[in-house]
Amino acid sequence: MQSFRPRSTTLTNTSINPNLWTIEEVSFDPQYLHHQETIFTIGNGYIATRGAFEEGYHTERRATFAHGVFDAARNYNTELVNMPDWLPLSVCLDRERFSLERGTLEKYRRTLDLRNGLLSRTVLWQSPNGRCATMVFERFVSLADPHALYLRCHVIPEFAGPVEFRAALDGHSDNLGVVHLRWIDQGERDGVVYLRTRTRQSQIDIAYAMRVETHGGRETKHDFWDVDDRPSVCIQVDARPGEEIVFDKQVSVFTSRDVPAEHVVSTAVHHSNAAPHWQEALEQNNTAWANEWKRSDVELEGDDESQRAMRFNLFQLLIVAPRHDSRVNIGAKTLSGFGYHGHTFWDTEIFMLPFFTYTAPPVARNLLDYRYARLDAARAKARANGCEGAQFPWESADTGEEVTPPWYPDPSNRTKLIRIWTGDIEIHISADVAYAVRQYWQVTGDDEWFIDRGAEVILDTGKFYASRAEWDPDRQRYEYNDVIGPDEYHDHVNNNAYTNKMAQWNLQTALEVLEWLRAEAPAKAEELTQRLDLSPERLALWRDVIEKIYFPITPSGVIEQFDGYFKLKPVFMAALEPRDMSTQQLFGYEGSQERQAIKQPDVLMLLYLLRDQFDPEIIRINYEFYAPRTDHTYGSSLGPAISSIIACWIGKNGEAYEHFKRAEFADLCDVRGNAGDGIHGASAGGAWQAVVFGFAGLRLTPEGCTTHACLPDGWSRLAFRFFRYGEEQQVNVNRERQD
Amino acid sequence: MQSFRPRSTTLTNTSINPNLWTIEEVSFDPQYLHHQETIFTIGNGYIATRGAFEEGYHTERRATFAHGVFDAARNYNTELVNMPDWLPLSVCLDRERFSLERGTLEKYRRTLDLRNGLLSRTVLWQSPNGRCATMVFERFVSLADPHALYLRCHVIPEFAGPVEFRAALDGHSDNLGVVHLRWIDQGERDGVVYLRTRTRQSQIDIAYAMRVETHGGRETKHDFWDVDDRPSVCIQVDARPGEEIVFDKQVSVFTSRDVPAEHVVSTAVHHSNAAPHWQEALEQNNTAWANEWKRSDVELEGDDESQRAMRFNLFQLLIVAPRHDSRVNIGAKTLSGFGYHGHTFWDTEIFMLPFFTYTAPPVARNLLDYRYARLDAARAKARANGCEGAQFPWESADTGEEVTPPWYPDPSNRTKLIRIWTGDIEIHISADVAYAVRQYWQVTGDDEWFIDRGAEVILDTGKFYASRAEWDPDRQRYEYNDVIGPDEYHDHVNNNAYTNKMAQWNLQTALEVLEWLRAEAPAKAEELTQRLDLSPERLALWRDVIEKIYFPITPSGVIEQFDGYFKLKPVFMAALEPRDMSTQQLFGYEGSQERQAIKQPDVLMLLYLLRDQFDPEIIRINYEFYAPRTDHTYGSSLGPAISSIIACWIGKNGEAYEHFKRAEFADLCDVRGNAGDGIHGASAGGAWQAVVFGFAGLRLTPEGCTTHACLPDGWSRLAFRFFRYGEEQQVNVNRERQD
Repeated sequence: MQSFRPRSTTLTNTSINPNLWTIEEVSFDPQYLHHQETIFTIGNGYIATRGAFEEGYHTERRATFAHGVFDAARNYNTELVNMPDWLPLSVCLDRERFSLERGTLEKYRRTLDLRNGLLSRTVLWQSPNGRCATMVFERFVSLADPHALYLRCHVIPEFAGPVEFRAALDGHSDNLGVVHLRWIDQGERDGVVYLRTRTRQSQIDIAYAMRVETHGGRETKHDFWDVDDRPSVCIQVDARPGEEIVFDKQVSVFTSRDVPAEHVVSTAVHHSNAAPHWQEALEQNNTAWANEWKRSDVELEGDDESQRAMRFNLFQLLIVAPRHDSRVNIGAKTLSGFGYHGHTFWDTEIFMLPFFTYTAPPVARNLLDYRYARLDAARAKARANGCEGAQFPWESADTGEEVTPPWYPDPSNRTKLIRIWTGDIEIHISADVAYAVRQYWQVTGDDEWFIDRGAEVILDTGKFYASRAEWDPDRQRYEYNDVIGPDEYHDHVNNNAYTNKMAQWNLQTALEVLEWLRAEAPAKAEELTQRLDLSPERLALWRDVIEKIYFPITPSGVIEQFDGYFKLKPVFMAALEPRDMSTQQLFGYEGSQERQAIKQPDVLMLLYLLRDQFDPEIIRINYEFYAPRTDHTYGSSLGPAISSIIACWIGKNGEAYEHFKRAEFADLCDVRGNAGDGIHGASAGGAWQAVVFGFAGLRLTPEGCTTHACLPDGWSRLAFRFFRYGEEQQVNVNRERQD
Repeated sequence: MQSFRPRSTTLTNTSINPNLWTIEEVSFDPQYLHHQETIFTIGNGYIATRGAFEEGYHTERRATFAHGVFDAARNYNTELVNMPDWLPLSVCLDRERFSLERGTLEKYRRTLDLRNGLLSRTVLWQSPNGRCATMVFERFVSLADPHALYLRCHVIPEFAGPVEFRAALDGHSDNLGVVHLRWIDQGERDGVVYLRTRTRQSQIDIAYAMRVETHGGRETKHDFWDVDDRPSVCIQVDARPGEEIVFDKQVSVFTSRDVPAEHVVSTAVHHSNAAPHWQEALEQNNTAWANEWKRSDVELEGDDESQRAMRFNLFQLLIVAPRHDSRVNIGAKTLSGFGYHGHTFWDTEIFMLPFFTYTAPPVARNLLDYRYARLDAARAKARANGCEGAQFPWESADTGEEVTPPWYPDPSNRTKLIRIWTGDIEIHISADVAYAVRQYWQVTGDDEWFIDRGAEVILDTGKFYASRAEWDPDRQRYEYNDVIGPDEYHDHVNNNAYTNKMAQWNLQTALEVLEWLRAEAPAKAEELTQRLDLSPERLALWRDVIEKIYFPITPSGVIEQFDGYFKLKPVFMAALEPRDMSTQQLFGYEGSQERQAIKQPDVLMLLYLLRDQFDPEIIRINYEFYAPRTDHTYGSSLGPAISSIIACWIGKNGEAYEHFKRAEFADLCDVRGNAGDGIHGASAGGAWQAVVFGFAGLRLTPEGCTTHACLPDGWSRLAFRFFRYGEEQQVNVNRERQD
């Protein structure tokens, strides 16, 4: 197996700090600009901002995203809107404007403190005319108050003369060239500057309010520049050598998703006026973060790099966790980049949700409520495909309709388009959602929510799978043909093992749920039976599909990924090394269909999710079979964490650790070269699962929890917490305690 | 035949003014905003600006376009860039900002003076707090200096208090939501404010420089608001009731197409500093316009509506005529809207060019030079299609590559796309270009240009048609199969009459040109013979194609539009009335293919262009046959002018006038409901041709010119000028003189 090699350039750049809670960048290299913008994203579960610079940079991908603020532009599917920019702050030293594109950068250091989400940058800059100053830029978005954003700039000049600060709110954001915002209004009230914009199609009003102040030095000018769509405040201070000047910018954000549209401005202005000053706000933020980490932290002793990367991954999940909103979900690229347009995939339910289900059940419930509230859209999709029940979309945004782009242009031929099939023929996501619902219920014991909402999801997705099943009278079996499994290198396949088995699981679980409801909540059982038409005939069909679904295991124990997979051309991954592209890119779209190389190991994913249904030996056999056929390096970022867990289960600690690092460093080291598009949320969630269900070997049983640790070499201790039935549990594995 | 009915609402709005040189709007109705923005476009052949308001309006389609400034955005074909906005001017009356969206509009009138391109708007507005003022906004883009733009605002307040003017340059323009510009720099030099932006893909630098001043009142504030990408000047004046304040804004524009990129700012700043003030600039502009009209005007006495509309159409052509640039062409929607992305079609050569060829040969030559310079791109297109010679693209932008969008999304189904075939299988445009080249040569006698450039176009397009011809050995004839003719309701047709005959004409003309060259410019003939490989074998093939090209005429004299047209389902246009959509929309894409209803009369277009090759009786028979099958009202805007001319030729004066009005009022009355997308340049050019070649019946012969007038009822006089062999000719037809 190819070993994991981080991109050394980036690793060096994001250097190792003795502090296990910080990510550092010790020099500025525009070559890594987009990657570092992703890495230095900060957020609070309501809004998040990429690590773009206050003063701007010409090749930047500056962006702020807020959950639920979607818009559909001309000829585009709906996408998460790049919100107005709250960062703009220009500093002029004696009339020369600070910029990394001019002058001399004598010192540079950027630090993200994972403990509290404080992003700091220290520069020592000399202007083209020779004016020097140390400048420290700090920012955080408050975890204590989702609407409060803070930015501070310290300037310590080495000259005497004017220092000017220009702080703005800017409504001209675009999504890689596509405009979603329209200017509505702006002004100044009670010393607070506001900007109101509106998304063009979805008509969401967005108000920002800004309050600025300076400390130190003597203010010689304080102007409001009332320029449309970029209201600005310009403050000039007389500076003296060595005397620090501090500039504070506080911004409050509200949208018409929070308050009625006619109140967005007044709410934001009032909020900004009442918002605490920097120090107090930072302390409140720190307290909120301390509470988060108390629940969420994973301690890995003996492996500093992994420890820091682990926290980085958890930080990425925590900053996009919707704590106060059950109408939103997390996109595959979180709120940290333009990748996948902010759309939600199964990445949430299978990869990110377990972390929340175990450590922050209210967040998990919000995420599941998002799906529950979109059952009608899922029903419409099932109907459109001639089925019954609820079929969740492969990509989901605000409405829950299918938003997978069906085509993308072929760069090599102007008249050609490449078809994206997942939105049409992928059907496993409904079972994935149902799986997450049952997992939430099992872990939390939240019967009230499950009766009220969760059960309906499982029953109606079950209904979908029964209606979608194809009966083969010759072979006397049910099949699912013409689908795509998780491994997207092969589409239009028949009887994808993952899909067939998860459908069976969904139907079986639906029957159990209905039985449970009849016993525990008979009125609800009756209501759902009526509303979803769960007639005896329908349930008989479910049982028949469960019994006769096609899911073969070869005598040797291998589960064929789909009909005919074994007959595809073999592939020898080692012979393809070294490579810097996926096997799909290497073999082409058609060539990949003909070969056994897979983007991610469907069968292992299935065995992971339904471990209890399989003999450990089957798991081992399938790992041995599929691991060498998987594109671990440039295939799906979802695969490595799962491979790591299975490797743990079968005692291959070394391989488990290799896979784990691929997941853990996916973004920090930009393993796939696309971290600039945003954080791989699934990989972050997968890394947590690898530690908890792999290295710690946590299993929940009706009687309690068990662990079965297999720590990587060098790890002396592994500790984390989670909640079972509302009770906090602590896991603390020391090397000497390992079995 | 259905008679022409203008949309009364718009006609009323654009009311009839006794002055035959003005277009007026007497009330403001946002319902017609986009249409009126198009109508009130001003320009000077270098740049043009839609009639958007200085202060903005939320549903506007504000745009400024400059010839040649194209850019290709992500997933889009290249398009003409919406340039930075030079109009922004906000007026605040006692701190209340003037807007048509607030307060009370007590008077409103907008006037476009076609004599000099001066656009004026007079409003009497009362602010929400009761402050009243008369405001007059005037603007023009100088025809005397293509880089100089002028805007003036008069305020006559009815109150005492501050009046504030905020003038800006704004780089945030987008093309219906797609961003092409990136901010580069801005500042203030010598009292002039500048803004520099750059197109994102094509990397064209654009610099605007702005100079402002006030007259009357006492200035109490004069600030420069240095806000990124919208540098602004804010001037406050103490106003007294009844005392006029005048605010002047001059803007200079240069791009890196004009001067080296590093000089765009300094050139613009210097130009603005040196630019004459309003009155002097206006006088220079008026002189330049007077010269244009002297050459170009068409006088129609006895029909004021047509007279004004005629001048409006000519104005539209004059404001986009590239007088100083041979690297650009005119888009189908001129520079007045987003329609067709600023792309050039055959609309130029067949519809707009004759006006320039006859009245402004240097402009015509510039337009033809654009094609000549793109011969290599046309050759590449021919090669890509397995042919030889030069095949011009159906849609052309900066490079001359094919830029027809191959697909557009089906609004009714997210997975479906509708194929646009013109970029692939339409082949008549090469002959259209060749036709325009020969027409220019014939009318101007510009042998030097023809030898140097024009001949090569005709020879190489001829080469294309010979290589593209398909020999049918059974029938012993050449065919062009699987094409689209001008009538786009039928695609993938065989032996389109227009295409086949124009190809034959092109080949015949190529042979004649080569013979002429051999006699008149033997060195050039030799060079082209070598370079284009015009071997005896090739010329023999040309003669063979000319002789054996399939072009049947039925015994009754009707020319079938394409193979099988006669067998299509008949259509009775009268039975479809009243309708408010095209027959294609009515019958659907497939249904239109099966029916005889046509978008424009291919055969009549052919008979128009090659009149000398056909018996007048054939022309009459085909008019009688095709007129009732043509969608005159909602089909192509190219058709009516041609139908009008043919109707003149066969003595159907009444019908000729009906068709003429459809062409002449296409935009002024928004006959097709899409004038908001921009001026139909071909219709404007067609209207001129209808008057000159239809009503006046002008024909050029080697011996001279003849007219054969058939004036519509009520027209007492028709007069215009043109140039033949560099000599000005005057045509003056009086009713009593008609034969």
